[in-house]
Amino acid sequence: MSASQGSILRLSPADEVGVALRLLPAGVGLNGPDGGILIPAADIPQGHKIALVDLPAGATVHKYGQAIGRTTSAVAAGGHVHSHNLAMAETAAAYEFGTARFQPPAEEGRHFRGYRRRNGLAGTRNYIGILTSVNCSAGTARMIADQFRGPVLDAFPNVDGVMALTHSSGCGMVLGSPGAEVLFRTLSGYARHPNFAGLLVVGLGCEMLQADRLIDDTVSADVVERLVIQESGGVRASVRAGVELVRQMLPVVNRLQRIPIDAAELVLGMNCGGSDGYSGITANPALGVASDRLIGCGGTSVLAETPEVFGAEHLLTRRAVSRAVGERLLERLQWWQEYTGHGGGSLDNNPSPGNKAGGLTTILEKSLGAVAKAGRAELREVVDYAGRIRGPGLVFMDTPGYDPVSVTGIVAGGANVVCFTTGRGSVLGCRPAPSIKLGTNTELFRRMPEDIDINCGEIIDSGVGVEEMGARIFARILETASGRQTVSEELELGQEEFVPWQLGAVT
Amino acid sequence: MSASQGSILRLSPADEVGVALRLLPAGVGLNGPDGGILIPAADIPQGHKIALVDLPAGATVHKYGQAIGRTTSAVAAGGHVHSHNLAMAETAAAYEFGTARFQPPAEEGRHFRGYRRRNGLAGTRNYIGILTSVNCSAGTARMIADQFRGPVLDAFPNVDGVMALTHSSGCGMVLGSPGAEVLFRTLSGYARHPNFAGLLVVGLGCEMLQADRLIDDTVSADVVERLVIQESGGVRASVRAGVELVRQMLPVVNRLQRIPIDAAELVLGMNCGGSDGYSGITANPALGVASDRLIGCGGTSVLAETPEVFGAEHLLTRRAVSRAVGERLLERLQWWQEYTGHGGGSLDNNPSPGNKAGGLTTILEKSLGAVAKAGRAELREVVDYAGRIRGPGLVFMDTPGYDPVSVTGIVAGGANVVCFTTGRGSVLGCRPAPSIKLGTNTELFRRMPEDIDINCGEIIDSGVGVEEMGARIFARILETASGRQTVSEELELGQEEFVPWQLGAVT
Ligand SMILES: [Ca+2]
Ligand SMILES: [Ca+2]
Ligand SMILES: [Ca+2]
Ligand SMILES: [Ca+2]
Ligand SMILES: [Ca+2]
Repeated sequence: MSASQGSILRLSPADEVGVALRLLPAGVGLNGPDGGILIPAADIPQGHKIALVDLPAGATVHKYGQAIGRTTSAVAAGGHVHSHNLAMAETAAAYEFGTARFQPPAEEGRHFRGYRRRNGLAGTRNYIGILTSVNCSAGTARMIADQFRGPVLDAFPNVDGVMALTHSSGCGMVLGSPGAEVLFRTLSGYARHPNFAGLLVVGLGCEMLQADRLIDDTVSADVVERLVIQESGGVRASVRAGVELVRQMLPVVNRLQRIPIDAAELVLGMNCGGSDGYSGITANPALGVASDRLIGCGGTSVLAETPEVFGAEHLLTRRAVSRAVGERLLERLQWWQEYTGHGGGSLDNNPSPGNKAGGLTTILEKSLGAVAKAGRAELREVVDYAGRIRGPGLVFMDTPGYDPVSVTGIVAGGANVVCFTTGRGSVLGCRPAPSIKLGTNTELFRRMPEDIDINCGEIIDSGVGVEEMGARIFARILETASGRQTVSEELELGQEEFVPWQLGAVT
Repeated sequence: MSASQGSILRLSPADEVGVALRLLPAGVGLNGPDGGILIPAADIPQGHKIALVDLPAGATVHKYGQAIGRTTSAVAAGGHVHSHNLAMAETAAAYEFGTARFQPPAEEGRHFRGYRRRNGLAGTRNYIGILTSVNCSAGTARMIADQFRGPVLDAFPNVDGVMALTHSSGCGMVLGSPGAEVLFRTLSGYARHPNFAGLLVVGLGCEMLQADRLIDDTVSADVVERLVIQESGGVRASVRAGVELVRQMLPVVNRLQRIPIDAAELVLGMNCGGSDGYSGITANPALGVASDRLIGCGGTSVLAETPEVFGAEHLLTRRAVSRAVGERLLERLQWWQEYTGHGGGSLDNNPSPGNKAGGLTTILEKSLGAVAKAGRAELREVVDYAGRIRGPGLVFMDTPGYDPVSVTGIVAGGANVVCFTTGRGSVLGCRPAPSIKLGTNTELFRRMPEDIDINCGEIIDSGVGVEEMGARIFARILETASGRQTVSEELELGQEEFVPWQLGAVT
């Protein structure tokens, strides 16, 4: 990571573009990274790229020392480099497997205070979950959960909350299809999640995915109940019955106590959303440092968002522990090209209008920044969406980039703490897992102070090093796992953001 | 419709099977429709089919006088006819277009008391809607709506409620894809819905589907506001601002008054869910009578659920006003065969485990019963999912069968009242439209009395004729349109069931 050079940050010495650290007005000269004078030809918004040298049409442009695309017209030094003159070039990378394996230095004696569940897993929260098998029971589940908001929980200080997990599917699926399997895996993962000390599964009765299938011996919860609306006299009677069942769980769940647990039992889910030009230079690399620290402690860290890795996959295959793991990653990327192709799209569509407004031009550029979250640790495993994360070490989960869907898969897999980087201002919560929001820039932190846990913008404007910011994040992960509330938990966010990936036909 | 013959109902004189009106115990003889004695070889559950004659293997079996499948083994008279010995036969129907057009008798002077909106549409409810452009603003929208539950609305008796419409998409889509268009059409349809007198659109800011796109001159609401979280200081500040915006809407919306409006301005959405062996013989044909009555008044009625029409489409093409309308229906069915085929399924997968437990064996059998909802009126138009319903007359909307997705499309199209038939016990609400729940059997009505508006089981066990039941439904439609609360409205259901059809890749 290069130090800031005034108004322009060059990330790698050979880069032809720099990042504007503030709005660079047209015609106003400023010092370039090499000390020469650059005069922006047009206003260059904060976070966007400025040409540091004259670029002919067709020139390969580098950022992070990596190719991010090719100019579609000539750009003079000082010009704004973005969608109007930069497009993704075909990469002809020869994949290497396991040629860049790295194990973060071992670190001993790190603990958090968590809940030891009866199935052996470690919880970081103590929730009662109301899980639904089908959309038809969603209203009922919400009504039950709504009875436990506010002062009614004051008598149960060890209960973090009662939450409903509702979704839009569970019927109208093709039985046995990959889509039905993904939904089942997701719901089962939540049923098993170590942050649920109490679990109530609510079904309608005639749905394809029956409530009983979600309850088995692998759940973490000490108290497990089921309720089927068609067997219980309808909505009103089921709400009454469900409220009573939860009421009986409260004292049981409240008696559970936090105990010291080795940091090795943390499973850190990572994600980014509403990325901007700073994501890849502040919050993501700082999170990469924290991820490596956790892995050094014997813990597990989960990178995901397959479409956002596209273009940087050759960096990950080099880090794979085996050819099989690397090839599994490539196989998933291949699947994604077909999946998005069927919809008439391509993986290049991924940067949203918001991303582009923030200064990211191509998926490739975004991917390099996105992969920075995963630090340097070797890649141990590639798991399916919502598949059980076994760890330790760095695991890749195959998910969409879309935040609620991606994070839902990661939490279903067993993540007990999540770090989420955002430049534009995501407000995602993911209860029952705490979500630590890492802002990429100080302007965001000032604009939405109640939605950001840590301002990684200090890397740019307060001279905090990436290593130091990573250490802060790692410390916050341990504190959060021990019970410190995140901003999204204070707001009780995270019911609406439970969105299992819907794959396949709705019939 | 044949009258009940004791314990077994034969729907058409030439049918080889009858419907069990109660559990028929094995070995206990009973009178068949022709007066002869039938002895069930095994217990035949209520709603299931009993063989009235000896059937050899490979025999075509009729119900409603229509082929519903072929026996896969021989069945003796008295045998249980179901999935174990009946499968769907290929139909080789020669399609006819417009050969069975029928116009229900004209009926004058029918009115309801509704709201005349500024865009000319007629509303049946007076809601304030909080619509979200993306999942990321769902939590915020819910928090705003939650501030207006309970006594806080007592001072505004003409306001039916403040509701949040949240969904799981709005980003992570392929821009310009059919899936993105469907979502936009659905959200725009709700934004325009005549049951919203006040509208607040809440976005995050960096999403693909921007909040501003949902607001245009065609909306019904007198007061329209927008709120973008990233421009408004984050979640907490946006909730405060949104609550204040809604507070300012309340007196304006409360001043609006119901006035007499011709029944011709009703748009009746129809659906079924959790169907059973009674659906096609009680609630659906009775609803068909009510639908024809409304069309006779110059109103509009909407049949949907394309997969459930499969197998009975030849009945609808005969009723089409033109070859183009009939071919459009067939074209949609063709699309569906490909859509479900991609997922490794087929349209025969449609009866859910619940449907099968209720006695329905094949999609064909279910389709004949499903189409009964549409009465006899000629088919005027086929519209896309969530497309604007123009009417008058019978309109077909192309939707999945899955209840929340289908009804969401119909309400987006402009339905201002919905009738929903159910045998197993659906609890669907679809605010801002009222949903009148029609139970197919009395046992359901006894079991879930607070979830059913009208018990059509009386057709079976109280000798109420189908015409009479249809008249009761039609009267209830007018009353409901005039403000009478349905059971699902009393329960405030219908926020969770807003589920736009998700088509295409999530990226
Ligand atoms: Ca949800
Ligand atoms: Ca993203
Ligand atoms: Ca994401
Ligand atoms: Ca919803
Ligand atoms: Ca349905």
